[in-house]
Amino acid sequence: MRILGIDPGSVRTGYGCVDTDGTRHRLIASGTLSMPAGAALPDRLLDIHRGLGRLMREVAPDCVAVENLFHARNVRSALVLGHARGVAVLAAVEAGVPVVEYTPAEIKRAVVGYGRAEKGQLGLMVKLLLGLDAVPTPHDAADALAIAICHAHCQGPMARTGERRPARSQRSWRHARLGHIRRSQP
Amino acid sequence: MRILGIDPGSVRTGYGCVDTDGTRHRLIASGTLSMPAGAALPDRLLDIHRGLGRLMREVAPDCVAVENLFHARNVRSALVLGHARGVAVLAAVEAGVPVVEYTPAEIKRAVVGYGRAEKGQLGLMVKLLLGLDAVPTPHDAADALAIAICHAHCQGPMARTGERRPARSQRSWRHARLGHIRRSQP
Repeated sequence: MRILGIDPGSVRTGYGCVDTDGTRHRLIASGTLSMPAGAALPDRLLDIHRGLGRLMREVAPDCVAVENLFHARNVRSALVLGHARGVAVLAAVEAGVPVVEYTPAEIKRAVVGYGRAEKGQLGLMVKLLLGLDAVPTPHDAADALAIAICHAHCQGPMARTGERRPARSQRSWRHARLGHIRRSQP
Repeated sequence: MRILGIDPGSVRTGYGCVDTDGTRHRLIASGTLSMPAGAALPDRLLDIHRGLGRLMREVAPDCVAVENLFHARNVRSALVLGHARGVAVLAAVEAGVPVVEYTPAEIKRAVVGYGRAEKGQLGLMVKLLLGLDAVPTPHDAADALAIAICHAHCQGPMARTGERRPARSQRSWRHARLGHIRRSQP
């Protein structure tokens, strides 16, 4: 299964793609899409949308995982993050790829084993689990890989045997959509 | 000048298009894009993006005006509204149309003449200024027309002669972008 984790931001959007069998993961690609400093928000949204659309075609993920940001610091930052996240989710759904979301605590619990782990611990576990020489930089890329690994752990054998609890509030929008379609058919 | 006002929402997105010479306005189109109840957010974003893209091609506006939502009720609603607004702004910038934004108070001041006017007064002024038989429904369509008329008043002769003050915090993203491009050239 190929999972693309996305950490959307209006200035820098991190991405991290892994192949996984649920326990072992292999790094396929990671990095960030950086928007020019001072660029207007609409142009940044265009860059994010185009960049992620290109990435989807290149890595052809089976699934996109994003962080659930309902705990943003304030209304203004939530609104700007919402713009970036909206076009990121749009790029996935346009490519026909299902989108799942996890809260920050779920990601930490699934990757580090502790929902209140620090950012540094998350980076170190990403390095360890992917067999890398160093923690991926910038941190947006490491965060995106952590989101992808979180989904791998919540789908893989570890989740199925109960060794690692699947995140409680994981929502699959694709499933929600299928449910909707089913309901609306006669 | 043809202005398309958009009132983005994740369930219903209002739109209203007017032709204007700055003082007299003519209704071109208004209505809402309604997403199926129960549809997942990614599918709703896809519907908004496709619907607005189609609308841009049909009415070919010179400018898109949206409400500045930095005063959303709470973080959660700001984030969801941000998603819808993000894909709406993306549809405009993909069509090469400049985007301007106004706060709710600026819209009320430019349309009714009083920044704390009630929603009902806004609808009545839209009816009056466009010479309609009734207030446009649903209210999302009337709100979108009010945003378009606000931009018409802030650009038109009334603004130039000082008869009606242009909204103070009006921001043109297109201008910001041009500024950026100019700065980055040698």
